Amino acid sequence: MNIDMIRAAGRRLEGHARRTPLLASPFLDEIAGRRVLVKPECLQHTGSFKYRGARNALAAMDAATRARGVIAFSSGNHAQGVALAAREFGVPAVIVMPADAPALKIANTRALGAEVVLYDRASEDRDEIGARLATKRGLMLVKPFDEPEVIAGQGTTGLEIAAQAAELGVHEAEVLVPCGGGGLTSGIALACEADAPGMRVRPAEPAGFDDTARSLAAGHIVANDRLTGSLCDAIVTPSPGQLTFPHMARLCGPGFAVPDDDALRAMAAAFTRLKIVIEPGGAVALAAALYHGAALEADTVIVVASGGNVDAPLFAEALTRFG
Amino acid sequence: MNIDMIRAAGRRLEGHARRTPLLASPFLDEIAGRRVLVKPECLQHTGSFKYRGARNALAAMDAATRARGVIAFSSGNHAQGVALAAREFGVPAVIVMPADAPALKIANTRALGAEVVLYDRASEDRDEIGARLATKRGLMLVKPFDEPEVIAGQGTTGLEIAAQAAELGVHEAEVLVPCGGGGLTSGIALACEADAPGMRVRPAEPAGFDDTARSLAAGHIVANDRLTGSLCDAIVTPSPGQLTFPHMARLCGPGFAVPDDDALRAMAAAFTRLKIVIEPGGAVALAAALYHGAALEADTVIVVASGGNVDAPLFAEALTRFG
Repeated sequence: MNIDMIRAAGRRLEGHARRTPLLASPFLDEIAGRRVLVKPECLQHTGSFKYRGARNALAAMDAATRARGVIAFSSGNHAQGVALAAREFGVPAVIVMPADAPALKIANTRALGAEVVLYDRASEDRDEIGARLATKRGLMLVKPFDEPEVIAGQGTTGLEIAAQAAELGVHEAEVLVPCGGGGLTSGIALACEADAPGMRVRPAEPAGFDDTARSLAAGHIVANDRLTGSLCDAIVTPSPGQLTFPHMARLCGPGFAVPDDDALRAMAAAFTRLKIVIEPGGAVALAAALYHGAALEADTVIVVASGGNVDAPLFAEALTRFG
Repeated sequence: MNIDMIRAAGRRLEGHARRTPLLASPFLDEIAGRRVLVKPECLQHTGSFKYRGARNALAAMDAATRARGVIAFSSGNHAQGVALAAREFGVPAVIVMPADAPALKIANTRALGAEVVLYDRASEDRDEIGARLATKRGLMLVKPFDEPEVIAGQGTTGLEIAAQAAELGVHEAEVLVPCGGGGLTSGIALACEADAPGMRVRPAEPAGFDDTARSLAAGHIVANDRLTGSLCDAIVTPSPGQLTFPHMARLCGPGFAVPDDDALRAMAAAFTRLKIVIEPGGAVALAAALYHGAALEADTVIVVASGGNVDAPLFAEALTRFG
């Protein structure tokens, strides 16, 4: 896993992944007490950065392997990213989802052309189901974060951040990234190491689910105590990945743990000031920048808004409470 | 007013106006039954395309005139565009607003550095107040649409549409534009005439306030019967402009009249599928593309989402009813 893989991913994604802009508002600068630049990956295809890694993973496969099809486990953003990428290549995609996943996410994944296989969380073993299908049909597994070509794809976000910030004359900044398994965070950190060495990447996680922040502090991987109970479900993972953590340990600054209410408040601020829709998990980095600024050092903070797949009732609640 | 002025505006706005992307979603294509491309000017500085025209008008002034300051009448998006442009040039801006304008819009305009002069709609004459201030202080009036450099600035949206569509291989399309006084619509029509002659621009307006559609049908300027009672207040004007209408009459196809509920429905669709925030007046073109497709002819429709300055309660209502 190195910068050359990320640059190769950038070439593969050209004309496919959207080069999301860098947004800003003087009103957000005022709240934060520093310059705030926002990279809205909610505007990416399928509404999250996950399309980058999925598309790159499929593009990097040899054609015969890809033609047999791909399989992924996901109840959310990764599922849609893999489904769209597979459809673009005209190859089958099987997505293994829990039967109690939101109906809209199941419907969206199917509408993108994927075959959705549902399993019962209580009585069935997801990995067993996936392994059986993969073997039987010769499907290639696309992991959500702990896979080099997925990390490389997500890292293209960092190449764009470095280039777009340089256009604005910004070379020193803290870069806050919503962090689940660490694919996006480690990819951006590797890209910035090469192209924007004056920037320091820092992960943002939901309070109570800050496995990466605690792992960075401990110097080794530690796990979350539980996996449910956060509105930021899209970025709750058991622990940072075996591949992603060493890069984060080497390159990243201390993490942020953001309460759910701050994520909702940041969603309302992004609505009012940037006119973008962010999901709770995608809003933790912006929330850290706006409401946890005491832990920041740089004059400029760049935040990734990693996804926007939030149901209407929850978004309306954020607006009602904090808009 | 010609294409050279729009190209000059494009050069003046470089590095200032945001080059908004062209967004798309397979789910919107399915609703519309054709390809839908969305130009989200809600992501423009100050949340609407108005910044383009304001910035260009100020940039095109001779420096001595500009230094004395500018004045504008507006309760909304034009106010914020002029205020930001004036602040960037370091010159005074006076915005004359009705005293009953939404408090947030007054506060935002002030926060952007403008001096807000309030007047009572019932008892005071806005034009008289403005003329007195302009004379006394030597301020230059920046009109909201019937001014060549404002039209030229808005027209840069059309230069970008032509270039971005060409990158996607799209050369023939209907281009639907939310239309108030016609600055944006005529500017885009002039830009497309030069750079995308296979495209036809068509205005979209609120039902009951479709002065431009009726004027195009009549072949001369006709006025609205009333000016209140639409959720799409940002694009309700008495009639198309003296400068804008001849361009629209020469270049534009028939207009669309969109009921408020369709605008709200389009706002909810943009929330779910594009992750952007559009105000009702900014959503009428998308609503026409999605729900009035019988009147469309081209395989591809490009819609401008012209602004996103909507209050949280109304947006929450759109999500609750149509999300």
